Amino acid sequence: MKQLIATAISLAVLGTVPALAESMVITPNGSRPSAKGASAQFTGSVILNSLYAPNDSMSSSGGHVTFEPGARSAWHTHPAGQVLIVTSGTGWVQEEGGRKREVRPGDVIWTSPGVKHWHGATATNSMSHIAITNMVDGKNVDWLEHVTDAQYRN
Amino acid sequence: MKQLIATAISLAVLGTVPALAESMVITPNGSRPSAKGASAQFTGSVILNSLYAPNDSMSSSGGHVTFEPGARSAWHTHPAGQVLIVTSGTGWVQEEGGRKREVRPGDVIWTSPGVKHWHGATATNSMSHIAITNMVDGKNVDWLEHVTDAQYRN
Repeated sequence: MKQLIATAISLAVLGTVPALAESMVITPNGSRPSAKGASAQFTGSVILNSLYAPNDSMSSSGGHVTFEPGARSAWHTHPAGQVLIVTSGTGWVQEEGGRKREVRPGDVIWTSPGVKHWHGATATNSMSHIAITNMVDGKNVDWLEHVTDAQYRN
Repeated sequence: MKQLIATAISLAVLGTVPALAESMVITPNGSRPSAKGASAQFTGSVILNSLYAPNDSMSSSGGHVTFEPGARSAWHTHPAGQVLIVTSGTGWVQEEGGRKREVRPGDVIWTSPGVKHWHGATATNSMSHIAITNMVDGKNVDWLEHVTDAQYRN
């Protein structure tokens, strides 16, 4: 028995037990705490679920965002662009000078670098999307003013 | 009326009507046809749904993949790494020399560049995941041999 334990410890110390965590990393659902969207950057109740962070090989971060009915981001730009993948509900997106457009599950939205825009739920329904946001110089968003009620309902 | 039409045409030609398609692009669900996973690269029935392609600002491609029970990718590597976000069902992932591990909705899997691995459904349940795959020199995957039934059930 002692020998078995010693062997197990040796294997662990020597690293001959496959070091799975170093090449294929699973972060289980529930291991990444949810956060609330800050009131400086969002209107209404918004839940942010981080999915993954950038690393040496991955220049984007990923998150899953849920907006309650009426909730939306402030106006903002992304210095290196962003992909949104709508996963549930019904939402609105709008770029400056453009019309408000409805988005639904399975729709994919590409926002080019520097385009001023917002996204959120409709007035009556919640909306969730995955956001894949590119980083440049450690930054992935520049926040601007809130979307007013008049702008949102327009 | 003629003048109104002429004005509208001029505005369109001059590009003073906001060119929405150029800065915030929505690709609606249903506009990207599904494809079947090729038998050279997959075992069993696999459905590939493209989400987005790389562009000047986005170095990854995105897709949603569904594996029927028993279906799985061949062994493969990614030259610039890959993130999987499990969206439904129950699946298995395995890297060479490692154990087979179960994944469920909300789990996120990061596979480092060059790591030989496979992913798929369990023997009894389907599994779907989003795949965010980095490109390097226009390439995002190197396909290897199939996962044998013995390897799959091990």
